[in-house]
Amino acid sequence: MNVKALRGALKAIKAVVETRNTIPILSHVLITSAPGQMFLTGTDLDIMVEKTIDLEDAGANRAMNFCVDASTLASIAAKLPTEGVASIAADGNTGITIKCGRARFKLNTLPTDDFPTIAMGDWDAEWEQDATQLIKLIESVKFAVANEETRYYLNGIFIHVPDGSSCQFAAATDGNRLARYHWDMAEGAEGMPGIIIPRKAIATLGQLLDEEGGTIGVSVSTQRFRFEIGKTVLTGKTIDGQFPEYSRVIPAGNPLDCWFEPGPLAEAVERVLTISSDKTRAIALNFEPKSITLEVVSPENGTASEDVPCEFNGDALRIGFNGRYLLDVLAQMKGTGAEGTRARVLLADPAAPSLWQQSDEAALLCVLMPLRV
Amino acid sequence: MNVKALRGALKAIKAVVETRNTIPILSHVLITSAPGQMFLTGTDLDIMVEKTIDLEDAGANRAMNFCVDASTLASIAAKLPTEGVASIAADGNTGITIKCGRARFKLNTLPTDDFPTIAMGDWDAEWEQDATQLIKLIESVKFAVANEETRYYLNGIFIHVPDGSSCQFAAATDGNRLARYHWDMAEGAEGMPGIIIPRKAIATLGQLLDEEGGTIGVSVSTQRFRFEIGKTVLTGKTIDGQFPEYSRVIPAGNPLDCWFEPGPLAEAVERVLTISSDKTRAIALNFEPKSITLEVVSPENGTASEDVPCEFNGDALRIGFNGRYLLDVLAQMKGTGAEGTRARVLLADPAAPSLWQQSDEAALLCVLMPLRV
Repeated sequence: MNVKALRGALKAIKAVVETRNTIPILSHVLITSAPGQMFLTGTDLDIMVEKTIDLEDAGANRAMNFCVDASTLASIAAKLPTEGVASIAADGNTGITIKCGRARFKLNTLPTDDFPTIAMGDWDAEWEQDATQLIKLIESVKFAVANEETRYYLNGIFIHVPDGSSCQFAAATDGNRLARYHWDMAEGAEGMPGIIIPRKAIATLGQLLDEEGGTIGVSVSTQRFRFEIGKTVLTGKTIDGQFPEYSRVIPAGNPLDCWFEPGPLAEAVERVLTISSDKTRAIALNFEPKSITLEVVSPENGTASEDVPCEFNGDALRIGFNGRYLLDVLAQMKGTGAEGTRARVLLADPAAPSLWQQSDEAALLCVLMPLRV
Repeated sequence: MNVKALRGALKAIKAVVETRNTIPILSHVLITSAPGQMFLTGTDLDIMVEKTIDLEDAGANRAMNFCVDASTLASIAAKLPTEGVASIAADGNTGITIKCGRARFKLNTLPTDDFPTIAMGDWDAEWEQDATQLIKLIESVKFAVANEETRYYLNGIFIHVPDGSSCQFAAATDGNRLARYHWDMAEGAEGMPGIIIPRKAIATLGQLLDEEGGTIGVSVSTQRFRFEIGKTVLTGKTIDGQFPEYSRVIPAGNPLDCWFEPGPLAEAVERVLTISSDKTRAIALNFEPKSITLEVVSPENGTASEDVPCEFNGDALRIGFNGRYLLDVLAQMKGTGAEGTRARVLLADPAAPSLWQQSDEAALLCVLMPLRV
């Protein structure tokens, strides 16, 4: 087969397969074939990627049915000439031979019977979604996904339809910040259960979407999800837990509003944070009617300050944030074109959650908890 | 001063200054000034970089004389607007204030009296050398520099003039491989003592040469060296030790010669090495009159082989090498233009050192010890 096609397929498989594995078969890729087609499958027991390669010459390869170390095969494919053509042939029951030009590799294989599968069951809802929109929703909320052992149900993106809503919602939170994105409900998604898609599946999905666009088929049940992206299928287990009632955290009546330009504010935050030496990267924002003055104090390094123009409807207010978290939110607010270049934060007092949005109608809203400074 | 100039100067300083330092002053950069000029100095006690910045507005900055944390200042300079202009002013005796646009930083300083200097003494030889040639000699031999504690005298490049020679020689070896480069003696270099320039000085010099070319002033004594590169001066201590009589290691009478194309051979070596799993990356080369067959065996992964055309004047010979070391040598043999696209290895038997060169007259010669395979 074409070296380039093999390389592309293995890239997707490698995103799933864990290289250091106590169970040898899990570091392997399952390779099978049908006339004119070759199938590659990789899994970590929680998610699974299946990739189909169309073979130019249907008869060129004999039937394939083996498991081979994914990272060795990927390294070989990476080193073969990009425009080359490789052949793979079984070498008894315990090995294969790969030939390409003057190079020849004999690799050990494992039997395919041992390769694990993820049982799928029936789907509760199925719909089609544009790849661009799926990328946008992932990119918008993934920064807020938690990474902790105890509250494992926060380690993913929660996708659901609130009671009586005509929209689908994606939400993520780690307790310090929250991001929520919504879009018009897709046809077929009406009866969907709320599901939590784990962090690694999100990362893999993002990578697959970057490679291949178009229309994505989505299928979900309470315990499983499935994304069909061109010739690639990503399936996996949802996180078995209850996502918190996050809407209670979104402040509804913050009276103070401040309009600002997210790009210049983010650059100023980056600058003053350079001297920060504490773990929380604490930064103080002093809101005044016409400016926000940023302040960072480091006992080791010194102090830094900068002011940025704004329109604030209150009197002086000083509020602290984790600077890194603030940058994550501002990165999402940098709208262009239709959504304008300004964004707004709604505040109440130095201890109350802040609400960040580009407008009341914006698809994305972010909540950031303050820090005492 | 110009932010871009400050950034450039700090990049050179940061190459020398160690960030994690038990002696605080060593993580600092010394900043002093004269009318129209600003001087930055960084050191690790073994080497020192001094950088001069011309100030556009000679009167704009007050006299500067302080030490400030190099990595904090570099981070700030990196975040300031590239086209911006920054001012630095003393803030009592313990701090400075940096202003640029709406941003302002107050940084703690240390007194300049504590900043260490490296005493220089008189030079035994001084000459001028073209930056391109200096880069070429460093690039040609640095791969063979050792990195070990016991034979510390191998941790650098040895530069010397052999008795009665009209050439200067640069050599490096780690006991497994050796690289030697020679060039016509520069005027003024006749009386030079043999000196060993340590690994870190070589890396810093390489970086400084990449930034600024032209003619380089070189000064050496038995214990010190000095490179003047445009507005930057690198000085340092030579390694205090005896470099071995390396010429005895260079085989003189290897009877078997093999001509090959280094580029394709290197690519084939890279390919078969992908399955290697041992630490020495052992590879066997089977020389035949018209081809070299490469072989790698990995108990875990399998085997790989490839053959590459050559012209060999002997019968079959099998010899093993460390694959990584072989690639390092081949990378240096990839000549273009005048030196041709072919290179030659001279061999004796599977246990004897091999000699790699593009021709008898080539400036660079490499010796590679075999591995038992």
